[in-house]
Amino acid sequence: MPTAASGRYFLQVPGPTIIPDRVAAAMAMPALDHRGPVFSAMAARISNDLKAVFKTRQPVMIFPSSGTGAWQAAIVNTLSAGDKVLIFETGHFSCLWKTIAIDLGLDVTEISGDWRSGIDANVVEAYLRADERHEIKAVLAVHNETATGVTSDIQALRRAMDNAGHDALLFVDTISSLCAMDYAHDAWGVDVTICGSQKGFMLPPGLSFTVASEKALERCKASNLPKGYFRWEPMIEAAGNGLYPYTPPVTLFYGLRESLTMLQEEGLEHVFARHARLAAATRAAVAAWGFDIQCRKPSEYSSAVTAVRLPEGHDADAYRAIVLDKFDMSLAAGLGKIAGRVFRIGHLGYMNALTLAGALSGVEMGFEAANIPFERGGVLAAMEVLNQG
Amino acid sequence: MPTAASGRYFLQVPGPTIIPDRVAAAMAMPALDHRGPVFSAMAARISNDLKAVFKTRQPVMIFPSSGTGAWQAAIVNTLSAGDKVLIFETGHFSCLWKTIAIDLGLDVTEISGDWRSGIDANVVEAYLRADERHEIKAVLAVHNETATGVTSDIQALRRAMDNAGHDALLFVDTISSLCAMDYAHDAWGVDVTICGSQKGFMLPPGLSFTVASEKALERCKASNLPKGYFRWEPMIEAAGNGLYPYTPPVTLFYGLRESLTMLQEEGLEHVFARHARLAAATRAAVAAWGFDIQCRKPSEYSSAVTAVRLPEGHDADAYRAIVLDKFDMSLAAGLGKIAGRVFRIGHLGYMNALTLAGALSGVEMGFEAANIPFERGGVLAAMEVLNQG
Amino acid sequence: MPTAASGRYFLQVPGPTIIPDRVAAAMAMPALDHRGPVFSAMAARISNDLKAVFKTRQPVMIFPSSGTGAWQAAIVNTLSAGDKVLIFETGHFSCLWKTIAIDLGLDVTEISGDWRSGIDANVVEAYLRADERHEIKAVLAVHNETATGVTSDIQALRRAMDNAGHDALLFVDTISSLCAMDYAHDAWGVDVTICGSQKGFMLPPGLSFTVASEKALERCKASNLPKGYFRWEPMIEAAGNGLYPYTPPVTLFYGLRESLTMLQEEGLEHVFARHARLAAATRAAVAAWGFDIQCRKPSEYSSAVTAVRLPEGHDADAYRAIVLDKFDMSLAAGLGKIAGRVFRIGHLGYMNALTLAGALSGVEMGFEAANIPFERGGVLAAMEVLNQG
Amino acid sequence: MPTAASGRYFLQVPGPTIIPDRVAAAMAMPALDHRGPVFSAMAARISNDLKAVFKTRQPVMIFPSSGTGAWQAAIVNTLSAGDKVLIFETGHFSCLWKTIAIDLGLDVTEISGDWRSGIDANVVEAYLRADERHEIKAVLAVHNETATGVTSDIQALRRAMDNAGHDALLFVDTISSLCAMDYAHDAWGVDVTICGSQKGFMLPPGLSFTVASEKALERCKASNLPKGYFRWEPMIEAAGNGLYPYTPPVTLFYGLRESLTMLQEEGLEHVFARHARLAAATRAAVAAWGFDIQCRKPSEYSSAVTAVRLPEGHDADAYRAIVLDKFDMSLAAGLGKIAGRVFRIGHLGYMNALTLAGALSGVEMGFEAANIPFERGGVLAAMEVLNQG
Repeated sequence: MPTAASGRYFLQVPGPTIIPDRVAAAMAMPALDHRGPVFSAMAARISNDLKAVFKTRQPVMIFPSSGTGAWQAAIVNTLSAGDKVLIFETGHFSCLWKTIAIDLGLDVTEISGDWRSGIDANVVEAYLRADERHEIKAVLAVHNETATGVTSDIQALRRAMDNAGHDALLFVDTISSLCAMDYAHDAWGVDVTICGSQKGFMLPPGLSFTVASEKALERCKASNLPKGYFRWEPMIEAAGNGLYPYTPPVTLFYGLRESLTMLQEEGLEHVFARHARLAAATRAAVAAWGFDIQCRKPSEYSSAVTAVRLPEGHDADAYRAIVLDKFDMSLAAGLGKIAGRVFRIGHLGYMNALTLAGALSGVEMGFEAANIPFERGGVLAAMEVLNQG
Repeated sequence: MPTAASGRYFLQVPGPTIIPDRVAAAMAMPALDHRGPVFSAMAARISNDLKAVFKTRQPVMIFPSSGTGAWQAAIVNTLSAGDKVLIFETGHFSCLWKTIAIDLGLDVTEISGDWRSGIDANVVEAYLRADERHEIKAVLAVHNETATGVTSDIQALRRAMDNAGHDALLFVDTISSLCAMDYAHDAWGVDVTICGSQKGFMLPPGLSFTVASEKALERCKASNLPKGYFRWEPMIEAAGNGLYPYTPPVTLFYGLRESLTMLQEEGLEHVFARHARLAAATRAAVAAWGFDIQCRKPSEYSSAVTAVRLPEGHDADAYRAIVLDKFDMSLAAGLGKIAGRVFRIGHLGYMNALTLAGALSGVEMGFEAANIPFERGGVLAAMEVLNQG
Repeated sequence: MPTAASGRYFLQVPGPTIIPDRVAAAMAMPALDHRGPVFSAMAARISNDLKAVFKTRQPVMIFPSSGTGAWQAAIVNTLSAGDKVLIFETGHFSCLWKTIAIDLGLDVTEISGDWRSGIDANVVEAYLRADERHEIKAVLAVHNETATGVTSDIQALRRAMDNAGHDALLFVDTISSLCAMDYAHDAWGVDVTICGSQKGFMLPPGLSFTVASEKALERCKASNLPKGYFRWEPMIEAAGNGLYPYTPPVTLFYGLRESLTMLQEEGLEHVFARHARLAAATRAAVAAWGFDIQCRKPSEYSSAVTAVRLPEGHDADAYRAIVLDKFDMSLAAGLGKIAGRVFRIGHLGYMNALTLAGALSGVEMGFEAANIPFERGGVLAAMEVLNQG
Repeated sequence: MPTAASGRYFLQVPGPTIIPDRVAAAMAMPALDHRGPVFSAMAARISNDLKAVFKTRQPVMIFPSSGTGAWQAAIVNTLSAGDKVLIFETGHFSCLWKTIAIDLGLDVTEISGDWRSGIDANVVEAYLRADERHEIKAVLAVHNETATGVTSDIQALRRAMDNAGHDALLFVDTISSLCAMDYAHDAWGVDVTICGSQKGFMLPPGLSFTVASEKALERCKASNLPKGYFRWEPMIEAAGNGLYPYTPPVTLFYGLRESLTMLQEEGLEHVFARHARLAAATRAAVAAWGFDIQCRKPSEYSSAVTAVRLPEGHDADAYRAIVLDKFDMSLAAGLGKIAGRVFRIGHLGYMNALTLAGALSGVEMGFEAANIPFERGGVLAAMEVLNQG
């Protein structure tokens, strides 16, 4: 198909997301001495601006790692070998949390889920009430399950923990929610928030972010897991003085500075509203095509990614390969137990109405190209939504 | 509207067109000595590869100027003060040719047109037959009228000139056609072909290209117009040895080298087929919306740009302002006597199906936002076309 | 020599000069609609800031051309066929002015010079006094002869013209002086100032600049030379409203905006002082090596470029080839009648002490590599100068 | 000082090093789906080419981390809590190895050193012979101590271990040696080699590299340290199939691909020769200035970095601040117990003769500016060396 042989590649996976030209240009500036005054000044400004994004007064730690590294850091800094943690199975990424936690020597209790719903706070509350000796040291939650497009109500979870009178820490993975949906580390009473650079921050992968509450920091003292690279303490100091314990990824810092500026210019509330509308438009398209999305409850819809369920008998990966080949667009795969069953449309980060409309056009044309029965009109339905406001 | 506050800007004017990231990266390389061996080698390769694009064996001259400069060069190198030239009024850009020609002291005969049709070769033939003393020294033609999206049949024009037995030179402006539609300087018997960098070449503005036939070069000897900056002779030498008479825009040369590589990789015939399909999809959308396009005859449809006529009583510029504000997309204005009456959708250069689908979605949503009555379904109709092949 | 196989290329020619990373990054931003509001706003800011650089209240015209184009524009907008102009032979570039002027049909009187001195204002005054009928319509001067590194005293020239009571226009080429040495279009009473983008402006080649006095604009009315592409009038309008008569090189405008910001940040007076010191250091090195420079008088030394005279019997071009091959540094050639006799060291634009010291080291090592007898210690002498202040 | 207000920043620290424009341009390309075919193909090529750089047939693991992360990975994948390891104190970075090892729960024996010499293989051999029960599980060595500019003879260390008949693993940190000095993982019998991206690889920080011998991989089975993020197994698989266990830093992969291409184009042996000459020139300068370097033995000189000892009573950090302020050059600080006592000149990566000469000029001028007594002539002496070959 000649029309895919030139022109812009459409990257519609929920991370890495499109890197804005401004950010790419910032990252192309010359490397500098990470122990010098220019770097320090930049790091100080980043430190300050990151707090606004996480809605916290605590320092924001920056590790040179993927988001998975921040998961590990959360565990090794606050917990000890054999500690019990509770995790609710929301999808592939909650399962990865579980795997990491087990790998690091924790005793993990997983509440099974259907991969189509968020965390049931009542069930968590029941588990915690039953844990009379408070052996559960932490509850691990994914704010937005990137694999399913299902969000969980973190404030409800916090209330459930409070209702149970339990002192477990609350860890929240905001890797694919931050800068796409509202989030408030302090106000929501979260103990450890972790995130990565390659989604709502509109950066390449390579940085992870961590915010710890005073309570979480207090727990560090008793933690006996080996920390090493992921020790929080020097990173908290670095958030204050710009002196990192090992070489920080300086060019990603340049990009982060620019990305934070862009978020400020747009305004976080506008950023969230934009994502909400793009997501609503996507769901309108899916409904018009006659397909289900993976997320069952409207209250749990994701503003960042939508997982679309294909009719039985159609392989989502074969479909995605056709779309990539014919339209030069990457859609995201179903992961884990829904591999081949769903495909996912990322609509977060540097994304707007026309880019999404183009992407949804590719999705719609792809159905026909792949001989998947569907109703026409998805893009039309999306335009109805995009044209509001 | 929050969805336009972030994400990629849609540049749907027929030049400057979207600059591919590869080309932008190439142009960001360090400047170099334009009299050194590295530049010479690059210039030699460019010289060679440009011939394939113009389908000529003649050297391709490169001036640091906009395409208008190449128009001027064509005139001052081959003609003399008071020479008669014949021009067919196809639209705003043929009128600019006329203006330049008059400004340079030529005696211009313009065959009036309706801005909705291409050159009528029979009419030209009649004019030439009537010019028994062969006072007309050149016929000036625009291959693709950027202002109207109407092409002219250059081969028919050549035949008409031959039928008339007239020895006037044939000048052709391919500024918005080259690399979007087929063109063959040698085979079509053109005497002077001119072009610019900022359309099908996918480069920023700043370079113009010129090819002259042996016959045109022969005419230089008798030309008495002042040439100066636009003298062909040193530029022809430069095309051979890479030594330019004044500093060449070295970073645009970097970009040109990359652009030529991209055209080679895709293959010119595929480039033309891609543009033809994108244009057909655009026209399908316009028809579905219930609007006319400026071009009357299917045989004269442009693969590069489509001018859409809005219903009477609607101001195309007000509409375009809404689209820009709400969807961050630039559509092109109507120019000259169709200002406010039409808007134009550029679909040439680094353009593919999904980008165009996104753009057409913006056009369609814009009608509603601007309260212009239209039939829904334009994007759907475009998708039918884009999904073929 | 392995040490040249990697690392930064040294570009020590007096244009194109090194493009700052900030400028390169600015130029990599996406192209935009040159008829839209974003471009207009940028163009307005550029228009305003350019005036400060030229020290003028007049509008600054921007042509998409090399500096040579601005020369031509100066002539065709103010003069008529057969007009007499006076030019002082300062070097290769004054000769190019002469060539262009003759090519455009002027009657050129050239006062011969030795290529080692600037304009002798007394001689000019004598010529003007002798021109009792005021047939000389313009005096053409090069502020800094790029080919020789010799400047001319424009204020003295102005006084000479005034002393002679002659009403000829004063044209000044500041292509390699602006942003390197002080210049003041208004205060110095210049009628037409022309410049280019690729030297003190730290941009790629592709733009030329022109400022015209009220007197020069008045003369336009009587001028009968064909103007076309180089007509001033629409460019003066464009300087006011951002609407260009043909597509402006938008990415070069991005770069220009950034370059003007950099000049403001440093401050023009500091820019001049920096260049003065770099030039003094270069001359100190040349003196220490035991060589002469082309410029005879200290009052005429150039802050932008230094032309070094090699001992008789040594070919400067062979020497430059060795330096390029062995150290990946481009030095500039001798041009015209001093070809092979001198080489030139450009030290203008984005240039600082350490880059210059590195360059001078390459020059010094090159003498040994090329078996040219010299005294050691040039770099040492340069360091003495660079370390002051 | 005006000469530092513009022009290229000199980054003469031993990492991050200067990023070549080609690499920066490669990294500015659009992000892509890290699970798609384009990324897989790139990862496969990188995997293959990295082997040549490490001179190994083993897979090269790439972690999104600084080099410190690779240290940790080496430990947690092969060792168990309480295992004994032997480390030779060569400087600040061997001490960091020690700190990490202790932090991860190992029992570290450190052989004290003077920070001016490399590893004494005889001493290591004696320690190993004394360890009759083979309780020492690994010997940790830094190939090039970035903090002192002292290298250690890894082949001698290997022989010492063999002579002792000891089966401890040999871990080698090549963070600042690889791509600057010869290294051969397989031929030298190293068990775990680790490296980072921001030095000889000419990339920004953000990637670490690891190669493990068959013996090291065998030891993984018995290792009981928590691995999590740094588990080798999935990274070895990723080296084979391009499927990473968590999001790889895709833009750094782009840069790595380009960097590997540049290393191939120059040829590794030429890369080493270039670094050797640059280092020799630097030492010649230091000797001429009358200062000592930190490294005592010529056989242990580093090709990557030279640590210069200032005379007693002079604060190296105050000196460096003056150089940064006056010449916009970053020199590296003394670290740990030689802080303030030495400064370091990085001369690795994208570095050539003229850049180094410029840097050494800044060092020399800085002495005067800082009122540190020195002999003139350092740059002259360096030029003698740089001009050879």
